Amino acid sequence: MQNLIPVELPLVYRLLNVGGTCLVSAAHEGQEDVMPAAWNTALDIDPGLLTVVVDKSHYTRRLMDESRLFGIALPTVSIAREVMALGSVSKNDDPAKLEKSGAEFFKFEGWDMPFVKGCAGYIVCRARDEQDIEKRYDLFVGEALAAWADPRIFDGRHWLYEKAPKDLSTLHYVAGGRFYGIGQTIDI
Amino acid sequence: MQNLIPVELPLVYRLLNVGGTCLVSAAHEGQEDVMPAAWNTALDIDPGLLTVVVDKSHYTRRLMDESRLFGIALPTVSIAREVMALGSVSKNDDPAKLEKSGAEFFKFEGWDMPFVKGCAGYIVCRARDEQDIEKRYDLFVGEALAAWADPRIFDGRHWLYEKAPKDLSTLHYVAGGRFYGIGQTIDI
Repeated sequence: MQNLIPVELPLVYRLLNVGGTCLVSAAHEGQEDVMPAAWNTALDIDPGLLTVVVDKSHYTRRLMDESRLFGIALPTVSIAREVMALGSVSKNDDPAKLEKSGAEFFKFEGWDMPFVKGCAGYIVCRARDEQDIEKRYDLFVGEALAAWADPRIFDGRHWLYEKAPKDLSTLHYVAGGRFYGIGQTIDI
Repeated sequence: MQNLIPVELPLVYRLLNVGGTCLVSAAHEGQEDVMPAAWNTALDIDPGLLTVVVDKSHYTRRLMDESRLFGIALPTVSIAREVMALGSVSKNDDPAKLEKSGAEFFKFEGWDMPFVKGCAGYIVCRARDEQDIEKRYDLFVGEALAAWADPRIFDGRHWLYEKAPKDLSTLHYVAGGRFYGIGQTIDI
């Protein structure tokens, strides 16, 4: 098991500030899905709010609509292949998508949603009651209820890219199977 | 003058996908401001929509509220110091903030808002009529009306981080004067 430390909720925005592609997790009545989403960002510090765009066509979306809970995780370079697999197939088309992705899944005690091993940070969110925005823009407003990080790359307050192995960088997706990773530190 | 090429509006999301910190520009009745904002992301492809969070306390916010137009630019490592300066002082406190920042400004013909030289991409947006979301979350929904990129780092369709000089990377801000830059390419 990956060693993880808790992240205080008013510091969750720092996990999101660097702009990494995330994995969205959801579960409802025994059904589960995980999908990547590049369109995520922080929305407030305290309470720790974030937004993520999940199209109506996704299996994950239906689970979010029903359960009103979802997970956000920040995958690292070490699992780029699994992230790509989770985004290349819809569970609408292949019910065995998760098993075939090559990703390893786990759950945090008390939270019924599958997370993928090998992420830099993990956030459990409750969807705010903003169905109007969800319908119009496929945009969810999530309030962080719990969060954890891999202390090799995020010490609870700060990112450690400059010290950590390169394959622990967050992933920044554009298109066409190409990801970018953090590789420079600039102090002003 | 920096050489810039136009970006087709349905490809604007690619400028935003990597998750860089942006500069938000606005102007109204002769008043102008530019401020950094880490909390931005794409929202749709066609029309090219994006979101950005701009708190009510910012001078820029008032200009956006009035003009309903704003600019989004993606600064590069080469102007990290100027970005930090534009985010460290409010024009509410120092009317000469822009002049003192060290940044060089320009305008695109036909668009009355100041942009900063040395960015990887530039987007002119109209704020969608979503005052409810703006008031509740300080979240603006922008529709791209025009966009340009520096062809040394974005060729109109794709990022060129793997070929470009390192100081043309986008900036990814966390906190405490520390930025990160892209430095790895991962193809799956």
